[in-house]
Amino acid sequence: MATIAGTDPRTGTALDPVADTTTTEQVDQLATAAATAFTELRRLGRRFRAELLDALAAAVESRRDDLIATASRETGFNDTKLGGELTRTVFQLRFFADVVRDGGYLEATIDPAADTGMGPRPDLRRLLVPVGPVAVFGASNFPFAFSVLGGDTASAIAAGSPVIVKAHGSHPATSLLSFEILRDAATAAGAPAGTFGIVFGTQGGADLVAHEAVTAVGFTGSLSGGQALLDIINARPEPIPFYGELSSINPVIVTAAAAAERGEDIGRGLIASITVGSGQLCTKPGLVLVPTGADGDRIVAAARAAVAEVPAQILLNKRIFDSYTTDTDTLGTRGEITHTTAGHPAEAGYAVASKLFETDVDELAAGLVDEIFGPVTVVVRYDAGSATKDVTRALDTLHHALTATLHIGSGETELAGQLLAVVEPRAGRVIFNGFPTGVAVSWAQTHGGPWPSTNSIHTSVGATAIRRFLRPVTYQDAPEAVLPEELRDGFTQIPRRIDGVLQAAH
Amino acid sequence: MATIAGTDPRTGTALDPVADTTTTEQVDQLATAAATAFTELRRLGRRFRAELLDALAAAVESRRDDLIATASRETGFNDTKLGGELTRTVFQLRFFADVVRDGGYLEATIDPAADTGMGPRPDLRRLLVPVGPVAVFGASNFPFAFSVLGGDTASAIAAGSPVIVKAHGSHPATSLLSFEILRDAATAAGAPAGTFGIVFGTQGGADLVAHEAVTAVGFTGSLSGGQALLDIINARPEPIPFYGELSSINPVIVTAAAAAERGEDIGRGLIASITVGSGQLCTKPGLVLVPTGADGDRIVAAARAAVAEVPAQILLNKRIFDSYTTDTDTLGTRGEITHTTAGHPAEAGYAVASKLFETDVDELAAGLVDEIFGPVTVVVRYDAGSATKDVTRALDTLHHALTATLHIGSGETELAGQLLAVVEPRAGRVIFNGFPTGVAVSWAQTHGGPWPSTNSIHTSVGATAIRRFLRPVTYQDAPEAVLPEELRDGFTQIPRRIDGVLQAAH
Repeated sequence: MATIAGTDPRTGTALDPVADTTTTEQVDQLATAAATAFTELRRLGRRFRAELLDALAAAVESRRDDLIATASRETGFNDTKLGGELTRTVFQLRFFADVVRDGGYLEATIDPAADTGMGPRPDLRRLLVPVGPVAVFGASNFPFAFSVLGGDTASAIAAGSPVIVKAHGSHPATSLLSFEILRDAATAAGAPAGTFGIVFGTQGGADLVAHEAVTAVGFTGSLSGGQALLDIINARPEPIPFYGELSSINPVIVTAAAAAERGEDIGRGLIASITVGSGQLCTKPGLVLVPTGADGDRIVAAARAAVAEVPAQILLNKRIFDSYTTDTDTLGTRGEITHTTAGHPAEAGYAVASKLFETDVDELAAGLVDEIFGPVTVVVRYDAGSATKDVTRALDTLHHALTATLHIGSGETELAGQLLAVVEPRAGRVIFNGFPTGVAVSWAQTHGGPWPSTNSIHTSVGATAIRRFLRPVTYQDAPEAVLPEELRDGFTQIPRRIDGVLQAAH
Repeated sequence: MATIAGTDPRTGTALDPVADTTTTEQVDQLATAAATAFTELRRLGRRFRAELLDALAAAVESRRDDLIATASRETGFNDTKLGGELTRTVFQLRFFADVVRDGGYLEATIDPAADTGMGPRPDLRRLLVPVGPVAVFGASNFPFAFSVLGGDTASAIAAGSPVIVKAHGSHPATSLLSFEILRDAATAAGAPAGTFGIVFGTQGGADLVAHEAVTAVGFTGSLSGGQALLDIINARPEPIPFYGELSSINPVIVTAAAAAERGEDIGRGLIASITVGSGQLCTKPGLVLVPTGADGDRIVAAARAAVAEVPAQILLNKRIFDSYTTDTDTLGTRGEITHTTAGHPAEAGYAVASKLFETDVDELAAGLVDEIFGPVTVVVRYDAGSATKDVTRALDTLHHALTATLHIGSGETELAGQLLAVVEPRAGRVIFNGFPTGVAVSWAQTHGGPWPSTNSIHTSVGATAIRRFLRPVTYQDAPEAVLPEELRDGFTQIPRRIDGVLQAAH
């Protein structure tokens, strides 16, 4: 039986084995246990789940130092990045406890029996209910926030679904420790056995997605990895929802007015944004449209100066290191690239130099600029005299994205409106005068966009991420006694729509 | 070029040609026009769309007689069924106008900039926006309510998406007339050209689903037809959401107490339910669990007597006629079937005799009872002494369904609760003491269930059907002037969640 072990990205040497690969029989046991836990978790109800999420948050917080030390060894991330990520992760668990308590996510709706324009209507009461056990595939780049402890897990538990996580091969020890913290805290809180499970190894992940007891999959990773899981799902006798966050180029557009107002800030901010987490962020800006002329030149000069000073950035694993090296080498030799600036050179392990490439909008063609995971971006100069046309042309060469960013001038609303109309169909979040890295966990957040950034019409971050693991059920003429309490007459603790009128909780 | 023509199901003879099959070039023109219309429709805004839906309703109502006469020729449905369906269809268009005016469907959410437990949060404002042009594949069995004029069209237009309908081969003249009414009313209301399109022929439908400008597909039809379209979608460079309503057995469970209280009513009601629309309803009860013993016998006796009196039922087309004939003949010769009662024999065209089959729960095996489109159902006797166990066993042999129905006794809450727990994971709507045929258009309706009844976590009937054609967008730190009006400060005409608190419209 093969064993699972991570690698120290600072040196490239293997770490101690963490676990054996999970067998098909073990996956079956985990999925069956999750199905049993699902029924019991449903019975324990909404208030229990809110308390459970708070208990999970407290347990994670109490193991902060262990988690950061373990993740640091496996990921090469510094303690500041990991500490911030863990804070975010704990916040996210507590946030979903609030979402569950609020109860608006249930979309509770009551249509009393009535005569209508289409004839008599029975009493209809609708609620969103959990789909069942969920498989979660964590990402390499967020060992906490998008992994075992992350948003998919938090939103699935909030929905009422047990979670089986496929541990990421880049941080198996962090995954195992995370799982043990969740499992022990869940047991202490009175959650059923099988509320959490963990699977190691590629075959175990495939078995998990194919298992009949699994009812949905949350995935953050590569387009090719997502496609492989989608193929498994499409071959299931009963296909299930797959929520993949797959690939994103995150274009940034700087208008002439913005360049004139704060060109140097934008240039420096860009390089800060592409080096967060060594550029291994799904929201990293991969292409920046900068106007030609002196103001744009100041942006480029500031960015060149900033990137040249960036220390070598450690990437997560050999695969990402190899891809970064190959893809940036290839791009750097393309004739379309007019200038390249590199950061400090690599030292050891999976460390790399940051890269700033420059080209012109006339040189862009489909496929020239695609997502490269790591600290690299491409500045594309365009003619501010034909901004909307040039931006449209440039974006037509790119895949759709999680985000699009507009740097505009003070009071520049007409051009901003035109550019918004260009970018909105191509992205799920539009940022003004900032950078797309940094995704707040909140009620209004969207982390999801058109294919291939995701394959979903839902977000994977923020309150409504819970909707992915819910399905509607309508009870027709049901006796009060068998209805979920949120649908009974006189229940006023959550927002409900009654006879077509939305009523706030009170 | 092949021409498209319907058939008179009363005689089986071909009707006059209606249209030529749509070519690949024509599909491209329609989809391109829809993409252009999409942008313009977005600009015209929400209030325009509400008025448009009301105008479409009025236009359809004004052509009631023509529509019914045309559909009657092609479907064999009587004027009562068609008149009721048209009333429902007009009601549905007006209902979606109300949904659009209400604006709650936008899920408008504002998180003001703030310091949070995870650090500073920018101003985030979220709204659901339309996905783009939608392809709609209407059903054979509802020439109005689930076809060109139907729920997919109404909810897509409500969302802000142009619609291209694939005309069903069973009622091409009805489809063409319906399209012309919509197109002319839309033009008169000021909607852009390309808001509606229509495609004839199987290849045209395939070309439509493959076209890059099409962003979602609504489909009501067979599992095999849906699977063929899914295969096309999975082969697209950019996969799109497919909302299929595919197949449903709709189990009905009668408890001993219900049988004792109103056995004869249930038996008669069952036969009335399976002969609505000649049994060609996705919500037709296909299996009925009746307790053994004298009370259950009364249900069966009443059902046998009722079915024997049912006149020959006209099916929609040769394919459905052939399937019904083959499938009921095959089932009737199975050793597991203990008794068969037939209605009046067929006369001409695609008319058939209704069928009531009987068996025992011990005889059920996976696949014995599957969906048969037409006026047929299977009564399964079970032991009321082990109701929950027997019902679970029986349902384990069936596919999941759009609906499940429980007939329970007065005040019988404990067993009702146990049976609800068994059926709820297997259905999207649970009916008490009624029959599943009849799907009210309302805020709380769910017409959708686990695979293979649908492949979706959304409904295709009722207010929230609109969600299928929307995606979230978040605007970060956007200037007020470029925000959609529903997200601007002080807009109070729709429900919004502000800083985590849901606020009703006022």
